[in-house]
Amino acid sequence: MNLKIAVLPGDGIGPEVILQAKKALYAIAEVYNHEFVFEDALMGAVAIDKTGTPLPEQTLNLCLNTDAVLLGAIGDPKYDNNPNAKVRPEQGLLKLRKELGLFANIRPIKPYKALIESSPLKREIIEGADFTIFRELTGGAYFGTKTLNEEGTHASDLCEYTEEEITRIAHLAFKSAQNRRKKLTLVDKANVLETSRLWRKVVQKVSENYPDVVLDFLFVDNAAMQLILNPKQFDVILTENLFGDILSDEASVITGSIGLLPSASLGEKNALFEPIHGSYPQAKGKNIANPIASILAAGMLLEHFGLTKEANVVFAAVKKAIEYKVVTIDLKPDSKFGTNEVGEFVSNFI
Amino acid sequence: MNLKIAVLPGDGIGPEVILQAKKALYAIAEVYNHEFVFEDALMGAVAIDKTGTPLPEQTLNLCLNTDAVLLGAIGDPKYDNNPNAKVRPEQGLLKLRKELGLFANIRPIKPYKALIESSPLKREIIEGADFTIFRELTGGAYFGTKTLNEEGTHASDLCEYTEEEITRIAHLAFKSAQNRRKKLTLVDKANVLETSRLWRKVVQKVSENYPDVVLDFLFVDNAAMQLILNPKQFDVILTENLFGDILSDEASVITGSIGLLPSASLGEKNALFEPIHGSYPQAKGKNIANPIASILAAGMLLEHFGLTKEANVVFAAVKKAIEYKVVTIDLKPDSKFGTNEVGEFVSNFI
Ligand SMILES: CC(C)[C@H](C(=O)O)[C@@H](O)C(=O)O
Ligand SMILES: CC(C)[C@H](C(=O)O)[C@@H](O)C(=O)O
Repeated sequence: MNLKIAVLPGDGIGPEVILQAKKALYAIAEVYNHEFVFEDALMGAVAIDKTGTPLPEQTLNLCLNTDAVLLGAIGDPKYDNNPNAKVRPEQGLLKLRKELGLFANIRPIKPYKALIESSPLKREIIEGADFTIFRELTGGAYFGTKTLNEEGTHASDLCEYTEEEITRIAHLAFKSAQNRRKKLTLVDKANVLETSRLWRKVVQKVSENYPDVVLDFLFVDNAAMQLILNPKQFDVILTENLFGDILSDEASVITGSIGLLPSASLGEKNALFEPIHGSYPQAKGKNIANPIASILAAGMLLEHFGLTKEANVVFAAVKKAIEYKVVTIDLKPDSKFGTNEVGEFVSNFI
Repeated sequence: MNLKIAVLPGDGIGPEVILQAKKALYAIAEVYNHEFVFEDALMGAVAIDKTGTPLPEQTLNLCLNTDAVLLGAIGDPKYDNNPNAKVRPEQGLLKLRKELGLFANIRPIKPYKALIESSPLKREIIEGADFTIFRELTGGAYFGTKTLNEEGTHASDLCEYTEEEITRIAHLAFKSAQNRRKKLTLVDKANVLETSRLWRKVVQKVSENYPDVVLDFLFVDNAAMQLILNPKQFDVILTENLFGDILSDEASVITGSIGLLPSASLGEKNALFEPIHGSYPQAKGKNIANPIASILAAGMLLEHFGLTKEANVVFAAVKKAIEYKVVTIDLKPDSKFGTNEVGEFVSNFI
């Protein structure tokens, strides 16, 4: 297969971890006779520094015209702590999601047996947990009108949803549930928010097409609790943008490290793959960042293009690295392996 | 001291648990020579059933003219699963918070030594954790304009904040931090939301009055993760309404049961005390609901009126019940003690 892949290394540890994902993909291409062409482009704080804008026209055009995008991470504390900054790295990411129409962000959560002890949760709570979060990615308060009055004393964010936006991701989530344990949990705050009531109504309607899937509802406050009390109860979780942001980061604790979790963001035409962790600027350049999430993101990319065998080889190689304890210090505080060594081990194993 | 207390038992298990809180307050009044006058009133689904509205005029007037309000819980699944219901129990609670001006909801989180094993988190993660969440309670998306178009295909919720709303709760939170370990963490999503950027700016400004308190910032997605990875890092957490709702329920897992956590909601003139758990309708009338959160809410009420000694007696009695394992089944699956027995034990101990 020929694939043209746009690579956006981004900020902080992004470039280091993405390099390992590329290595894995190169190894796959060689062994299985594919041709993967990578083209790097600027996004995030690094793009602001070099071009004044977090998502240069050129980057966007590249992404629109490739088969897939592989993203590292974006974000820089110099923007976070300056509430007056007019240009911020996150704007680039949000614009990219919107322009590529990446409405569904998919985050599978499943602890590795060999890492059960790394979780802050007890073994009996997490052993056997296996669920996927479908987070809506191009709507809600992320994209609604924002206001700040002239005196800077009154601000607002508008959260909006339409039936159409909810319907399209609901179908994806129900289809996934059909291939899994046939349970879908909608997380919302329907006792308070109008948008949540719309979610509940629309998802109920969509569910009529999937009579084999059991649908239930959970308020987001309760869901935040249930994820920790009893994560095994979940199969597919469907939720809106901001709730999905919060819950999927929270759910990462089940696996012991956010450095293990990849995500896929899908639209009608485009697809983007990335680790769910952030740019972790404190670790930049130290060869300590965990590359596994990025490598798994590359695995999800292969899966997306129907290269199931190849994807499974990547997943198996990561599993081996974990079993052999070739992991970074987030998983083994006294580890002597760094970002590079873990990436090297995985690609050698392919 | 003479106190007039409005009691709103509410729905589900509300009446059962509130009864135990009243018993504790009666015991305190007797032993310490106070006069507490209780007046019960309707709120929630029970009020809708009897009067057509979740917060009858009479209830509101009573609450406005008493020293404090003691609330059970509200909510009923028959409203939750009907996105078209025009009247809902939660509207009563939200209106009450707004009318009483209860802008600060305070939720202390601290595990009991005797219950360390009940938490899904490992002992070493939670032992020594001790923090308080300050949740803004009368602003944000809870109270902003909501819209639903006529076809029912487009909904919106507006999240708004003003400098004044942020300033007043920030002062309370900083003062609390001064009396604790002098650290305040603002949780927001300033990389995306305009309201969050206003929070960051205003809280930074308020912090200048509290040079002895260290201020730091955390994005809400990261906070949801950090609460579980390392809860000991927190002292005072300050956040907006919806984030506070999610994070404080999540934080309840640290203590092992949401049935243990009380909260105080304070305004300029009024104060309300309640367990943080909901109405838990499945448990209604079964004498299995944990009354401890409600009893502790009564303890917070005493503390609020400067009855520190009495409050400590209540807290000590609860601690004894826990040490002697006189607890409900959420804490000890084979417990033979019910709501009544736990309440009885506590008030006898006073
Ligand atoms: C960087 C930030 C804007 C982003 C988000 O909130 O969506 C990140 O947290 C994520 O989850 O991908
Ligand atoms: C019942 C509901 C409206 C309420 C809230 O979201 O504020 C509850 O969850 C709480 O935390 O007190």
